[in-house]
Amino acid sequence: MPTLVMKFGGTSVATLDRIRRAAKRVGVEVSKGYDVIVIVSAMSGETNKLVGYVNETSPLYDAREYDAIVSSGENVTAGLMALTLQEMDVPARSWQGWQVPVRTNDAHAAARIEEIPTDNINGKFGEGMKVAIVAGFQGIGPDGRITTLGRGGSDTTAVAFAAAFGAERCDIYTDVDGVYTTDPRITDKARKLDKISFEEMLELASLGAKVLQTRSVELAMRYKVKLRVLSSFEEQSDEAGTLVCEEEEVMENRPVSGIAFSRDESKMTLVSVADRPGIAAAIFGPLSDAGVNVDMIIQNIAEEGRTDMTFSCPIDQVKRAEQALNGAKEAGDINYHDLVADTEVAKISAVGIGMRSQSGVAAKMFKTLSDEGVNIKVIATSEIKISVLVDRKYMELAVQALHDAFELEKA
Amino acid sequence: MPTLVMKFGGTSVATLDRIRRAAKRVGVEVSKGYDVIVIVSAMSGETNKLVGYVNETSPLYDAREYDAIVSSGENVTAGLMALTLQEMDVPARSWQGWQVPVRTNDAHAAARIEEIPTDNINGKFGEGMKVAIVAGFQGIGPDGRITTLGRGGSDTTAVAFAAAFGAERCDIYTDVDGVYTTDPRITDKARKLDKISFEEMLELASLGAKVLQTRSVELAMRYKVKLRVLSSFEEQSDEAGTLVCEEEEVMENRPVSGIAFSRDESKMTLVSVADRPGIAAAIFGPLSDAGVNVDMIIQNIAEEGRTDMTFSCPIDQVKRAEQALNGAKEAGDINYHDLVADTEVAKISAVGIGMRSQSGVAAKMFKTLSDEGVNIKVIATSEIKISVLVDRKYMELAVQALHDAFELEKA
Repeated sequence: MPTLVMKFGGTSVATLDRIRRAAKRVGVEVSKGYDVIVIVSAMSGETNKLVGYVNETSPLYDAREYDAIVSSGENVTAGLMALTLQEMDVPARSWQGWQVPVRTNDAHAAARIEEIPTDNINGKFGEGMKVAIVAGFQGIGPDGRITTLGRGGSDTTAVAFAAAFGAERCDIYTDVDGVYTTDPRITDKARKLDKISFEEMLELASLGAKVLQTRSVELAMRYKVKLRVLSSFEEQSDEAGTLVCEEEEVMENRPVSGIAFSRDESKMTLVSVADRPGIAAAIFGPLSDAGVNVDMIIQNIAEEGRTDMTFSCPIDQVKRAEQALNGAKEAGDINYHDLVADTEVAKISAVGIGMRSQSGVAAKMFKTLSDEGVNIKVIATSEIKISVLVDRKYMELAVQALHDAFELEKA
Repeated sequence: MPTLVMKFGGTSVATLDRIRRAAKRVGVEVSKGYDVIVIVSAMSGETNKLVGYVNETSPLYDAREYDAIVSSGENVTAGLMALTLQEMDVPARSWQGWQVPVRTNDAHAAARIEEIPTDNINGKFGEGMKVAIVAGFQGIGPDGRITTLGRGGSDTTAVAFAAAFGAERCDIYTDVDGVYTTDPRITDKARKLDKISFEEMLELASLGAKVLQTRSVELAMRYKVKLRVLSSFEEQSDEAGTLVCEEEEVMENRPVSGIAFSRDESKMTLVSVADRPGIAAAIFGPLSDAGVNVDMIIQNIAEEGRTDMTFSCPIDQVKRAEQALNGAKEAGDINYHDLVADTEVAKISAVGIGMRSQSGVAAKMFKTLSDEGVNIKVIATSEIKISVLVDRKYMELAVQALHDAFELEKA
């Protein structure tokens, strides 16, 4: 029998009614002849409640106890999904992570899956079971204790199972009906994409289109798992949602596939840094140690042995960044005249694998923004992405203008 | 190091504040030099919520899925208790049932503990851990799936750990401060007992003094585990609560230790049953199959080959009992003229190991009730118990009169 992996997120299993609805979708795939592996999240709100308990109990918690606590929500949903399918006369049973077992490394609260043996579940498929429901987000570490994979980890569980079982496809059911050219709340011209490449999805996901956990996309790309994102709240056809797949399978050959944005960015500039070999490491080492997620980095040309160094980071990490840099200055590791933070910026990115073969994309982007009177503060580019920082107040305008300029509303 | 087992019920861990309070009690015992094993229930309300989910999803549920679902509440409390103790600088960690492992038989939802290996936890005690927190109520079956022990099962978990680890004592923290001579809501003369024998506790527990799960008392009796019941809501001394222990250790030598009662009883009479060998089995077999908990049984003297058979059962099982008996009659297995149910009765029991050596207890009980004008409908006796059925409206009066007659308010 071909195998299908179906993953249901927290909002898709938020109530017993929604679990029933999800189970019906599973039943449809079973009736098509699939052996189905269902990965479930906790009912929405449950994990947050448990994380709240942990934070209130112990601000600097033991991550092993955190994992034992927050993994419990998925176990409840897995059992309830099994009972719901059984009520529909579909042979089903639940597995907790340690029962499969989903073996991970020992990085509690942010563990990585290392191995998923298939014999246990395949044995049950062989005995006539049609659906294996597995609690997502969790595994078991080398010490025999429960681990969790970090926020959104159930997506990664789903892709890892699809890879381990050689599934035909991995369907991620969520509360949106696919991946859009941009956020429909910014422009009603936003269009759902039928297909998108892994590479584009990675850029979009890490840029704030929070449909799929980044790691799950990386994993899908590495193991060539066909990933489909679709809504659990709509009637579904086989062509519903967005298929995330290899570049060759994406037929559209447009330079830009989507416009991503990130509202809460800040731009920090170290003014007049004493330039010397190793200065970048001296600056960004302490920032990394302090847990600051540095994104774009620009170094101006040095004059008379001094240079300006600019970088961007999420706005809520500015304080931490300032502390780290002031600490490094006091320790004598770096030397600068001033540290200037601009917390009123947003990041806009145009993403598309077509950029590789088509020129002029950057020029068109800059001209579009210029025509709208939007000043670009920082530019960074990769092979399939051009990102700019602009004043936050222009963010919506910039996204709309770029969406129009690259004609993303047209299929 | 001597080992102590401490068990905290649902109301004792209902909030993070109460978990903190319980952890402080644990800390006190650690400071006395004990290695402590803490058994926790789910935060009160959690298990009921999960059971509600199961019943709503699937009225005839798969007990293996039920167990996987309802056991999750205890895991949360265990982790939170570990974090709370760590915050108090007490080395602690949590165990889920399958991690110990608490091995049970395969009777899902009503499993019995078969083995608790001690090496895992004792190894950690050897490394300096001071408190092992174990999720109560749960274990792992021969098939590697999670089992639960039935309602109140955490008491049994606690006693089983005390037996396995040779603990000096097993302290059950609950929302009452001990075992009383009767329910203080019936008479304010009710007095807390300092000590009570296992046998008396068994009779009291099964009669409705719902302080401890019956099976946990049986287990404690078999393995000679000193069991103490005490309140988690009061400051505690070493003499607090009620010690449940062997008969020899109970110093008081009074005929009656307590008056128990059960309000919602019913009395059923099969009128004019054709008497023959095996008739009792023909009647009570079908009742047992139907899940009716028959308590007292009285058979009148047979006349002309016919007899009356009377038994008592909980009021909510009357319908089921009638169906079972009518079925047996229709099948020709039994023959009776009439089936009369009196659903307006209550059971009153005087319990005391002193009865064994002191005569006149039954006579005194009957005379006391007679003096109050309370008619006795059924009598049943055991070595340390005398039970009567009376009209429900006299229940409080009867309990108060007996409590006075046996002078239970006096220490």
